[in-house]
Amino acid sequence: MDFKIVNEKLDQATAILGELNIDMWMTYVRETVLTPDPCLDLVAGLDLTWHSAFILTRSGERIAIVGRFDGENVRAIGGYTKVITYDQGIRASLFETVSRLGPQTIALNYSMSDPAADGLTYGMQQNLLAAFEGTAYAKRFVSAEKLIAALRGRKSKSEQAHVKAAIRTTEKLLDELGETLKPGLTELHIAEKLHAARRALGLGTAWGEPYCPIVNAGPESAVGHVAPGTIKIARGQLLHVDFGVKQDGFCADLQRMWYFLAKDEKRPPAEVQRAWDACWAALDAGAEKLKPGAVCWEVDAAARASLTKAGYPEFQHALGHHLGRVAHDGASLLGPRWEKYGTAPLGIVEPGNIFTLELGVAVPERGFIGLEEDVLVTESGLEWLSKPQRKIWLV
Amino acid sequence: MDFKIVNEKLDQATAILGELNIDMWMTYVRETVLTPDPCLDLVAGLDLTWHSAFILTRSGERIAIVGRFDGENVRAIGGYTKVITYDQGIRASLFETVSRLGPQTIALNYSMSDPAADGLTYGMQQNLLAAFEGTAYAKRFVSAEKLIAALRGRKSKSEQAHVKAAIRTTEKLLDELGETLKPGLTELHIAEKLHAARRALGLGTAWGEPYCPIVNAGPESAVGHVAPGTIKIARGQLLHVDFGVKQDGFCADLQRMWYFLAKDEKRPPAEVQRAWDACWAALDAGAEKLKPGAVCWEVDAAARASLTKAGYPEFQHALGHHLGRVAHDGASLLGPRWEKYGTAPLGIVEPGNIFTLELGVAVPERGFIGLEEDVLVTESGLEWLSKPQRKIWLV
Repeated sequence: MDFKIVNEKLDQATAILGELNIDMWMTYVRETVLTPDPCLDLVAGLDLTWHSAFILTRSGERIAIVGRFDGENVRAIGGYTKVITYDQGIRASLFETVSRLGPQTIALNYSMSDPAADGLTYGMQQNLLAAFEGTAYAKRFVSAEKLIAALRGRKSKSEQAHVKAAIRTTEKLLDELGETLKPGLTELHIAEKLHAARRALGLGTAWGEPYCPIVNAGPESAVGHVAPGTIKIARGQLLHVDFGVKQDGFCADLQRMWYFLAKDEKRPPAEVQRAWDACWAALDAGAEKLKPGAVCWEVDAAARASLTKAGYPEFQHALGHHLGRVAHDGASLLGPRWEKYGTAPLGIVEPGNIFTLELGVAVPERGFIGLEEDVLVTESGLEWLSKPQRKIWLV
Repeated sequence: MDFKIVNEKLDQATAILGELNIDMWMTYVRETVLTPDPCLDLVAGLDLTWHSAFILTRSGERIAIVGRFDGENVRAIGGYTKVITYDQGIRASLFETVSRLGPQTIALNYSMSDPAADGLTYGMQQNLLAAFEGTAYAKRFVSAEKLIAALRGRKSKSEQAHVKAAIRTTEKLLDELGETLKPGLTELHIAEKLHAARRALGLGTAWGEPYCPIVNAGPESAVGHVAPGTIKIARGQLLHVDFGVKQDGFCADLQRMWYFLAKDEKRPPAEVQRAWDACWAALDAGAEKLKPGAVCWEVDAAARASLTKAGYPEFQHALGHHLGRVAHDGASLLGPRWEKYGTAPLGIVEPGNIFTLELGVAVPERGFIGLEEDVLVTESGLEWLSKPQRKIWLV
C-alpha cells in the first residue's frame, strides 16, 4: 500500500489546524467497511475494525489509537508519531491521550451540510460523550467541517494528477464509444460498451455502477440518477451520457452529447443548436465567476441567470460539485441556497479546488442536453481539466 | 437490478415492527456513496444522492421520500406504497408524512454497540432534530438497534442461500490453493494466488482487499488484520490463511491451516497437534452452546473457558460474529462483555442467524493456529455451512 498521499494530507491538515486555530482534530471510527468515515482516506487510507481514533494537533502531534489487530497496518502508514493499541476498550487510552494534550477545542467529523465532513455516526458521538462525561472535554467538541472542507477541497499536486489521469481515461473511453454509435442501440447496449471497456482496464466507476454511465436516448428517457433502459436511440434524437471512471482512487465526472442526424440533415435542428448555445453560454457565465475568493452560490447564480434569461427553465441541481476520491467530493458547493444544500453554497472558492461545471435543458421531441466539464481553480482563475465539448458530436 | 431480497426484508421488517411494538422506522440518508448506512441494503439496495427517508410503519405503510433524480430508481424497487420526490429540500414532505402517520415512536438507525445499526450520522441526526424542532415528534426518536439486529440477523432463505454459495466458492479457492503450496513461497505470493483465482471469477473480497486474504507464514508473521508480507513459509512451520469472497452481495469468512512437514516428519509435531486439538475442543464447546435462546456472551465464554482450561491464553477477540452482506455483519456478537463490544454480547441467539466460530493460539517457533468455520443457527441447533477442517492439512 502506498501512503504517500495520506502523508501529504496529514502535513496539510497540521497546517490547516493552525490556520483555523483548532487545537485538535479527531477522526473516530469503527468497523469502517460498514460505516466508513470519508475522512479515513485522508488520515489513514485503510480500514479499521475496532474503535479507532486518529488524533492530530496544531502542535504537530499525530497519534493513532487502534485495536491490537490493526496496529501493524497503522504503523505502516508512517505518518503517526505514536500508535497506541488496546485489547478490551479504547476509552482509557483515549481519555489519557486527550488529557495529556489538554486541547481547548476538539474538532469532530460532523456536519449538517457537508456529507464528506459527516462521518461520525450518532452512536459514536454518544460513545465519545460517554467517554468524556463529567470532564471539561465533553464541552469542547466542535464540528471539523471547515477544516475538512479545506483539507479535502485543496487538492495536492498528487491528487490533481490522479484526477487528471482519471479524466484522460474517461475521455478516451467516451471517444471510443462515439466511434461505435449507431441508431437502434438501446441505452443498455451503450452502457454495456462503456462497462466492458472500463473493466478491460481494471477500473471502477466514479459512482454506483448501475448508474455509471447514465445514458439517455431521446426524449422518452427519464433524466436523473437512473439506470439505462431498453429505449433505443433513433435518428433525429439526442444521446446523453454521464460517466466517469475511478482510477487509482480518484474520479472523473463528464457528460457528453451526440446528435443522430435525421435523413438529409447536415446539422442539428435549430432548436437543438439554440439550446446547446444557451447551455454553453450559461456554463461559461459560471466559469467566468469561478476564481479564488468567489462565493460558491454566486458562481451558480451567474450560470442560472444566464440560462433563465435565455428562456430556459433553471436546472434543478447545483452548477458544480467538488471532484476527487468520489464524484460528489463534499466540501463547498457551486449551488443555490436551497434547504438541502445547507451552508455548502456559502463556501469560498480556493486554489486547488477541482469542480464539475454542469447544467442542461430538455429539448422537446429530441432529448436531453447535458453539459459537464471538470475544472481546476488556480491562483489566477480556472484551468479546464477536461477538453470542453464545445460542439455536439454528430452520428 | 434485482430487488427480490429487498422486498423480502421489507416484509420481514413490517412484522418485526409489530413484534417490537415500534410505530415507525425511518432510515434517513444522503450521498450514500460517501456515507452509506448499512441498512440501505435492507430497505433500498441502491445509492441515493440527496436527503432521502425510507419510512416503514407497523400498519404496513412504506413511504420513500427522495430527491427528484432518484425517484425513478426508488419506484423500481417495487416495495414502496408511495414514493414522494422533492427538489429543494426534504423537510416539508418529511414533516407532512410523519404528521399524517402520527407515530408514538420513531426508530432511527443509531447504536452505541452495533455498527450495522449505526448508519445515521451525527449531522443527519441534527438535521432531523431541526426538522422536528418544537414538535412532539422531536422527543419520540428511539434507537432502531433491536429492530435492525433482528432484521439483519434473521437471514431469509434467499440470504442463507447466497452466504452458502459464497462459502462453497471460498472453500473451492482454498482447496485449489492447497494444491499449489510449497516451501519458499512468500505470504504475498500466496495472497496473489487467491486474488488471481478470485478475480478470474469476477468476485470481490469479504473485507478490505489488502487484508483479504490474511496470510501468516510461520512464527515471525504479525497476527491481525495485517497485509501479507515478504516472509517465506518454511518446512516445520504453520501456514494460516483467513479469507472469504463476496459473491452476489454476500460474504464467506473462513480460516484454513497447513503444516509444512520437516524432513522425515510424517505428522505435525506434538505441540502443534496438542494446540490444534485444544482449539477444536474450545470451538466445539462454543458450538455446543449455540442454539436459539442462548445468550451470546455465554457461547463465547464456553469456548474461552475450554481453551484457558487447556492451558492456552484466551483469544483477544470474540468467538464469533454474524456473517452476511459484510464479514462483520453487526447485530449481536458471540463475544465477551468487554467495553468495546457494548451490549452486543447480551444479544439472544435466534434461528436464521449465521455466525462465524473462530479462535486460535500461537505455537512458539511454528506459527499461528487459527480456526474459523461458518454456521447457521436452526430451530433445533446448528448447521455447519462450511466443511469443518478437523485435521491440519499437510504439505
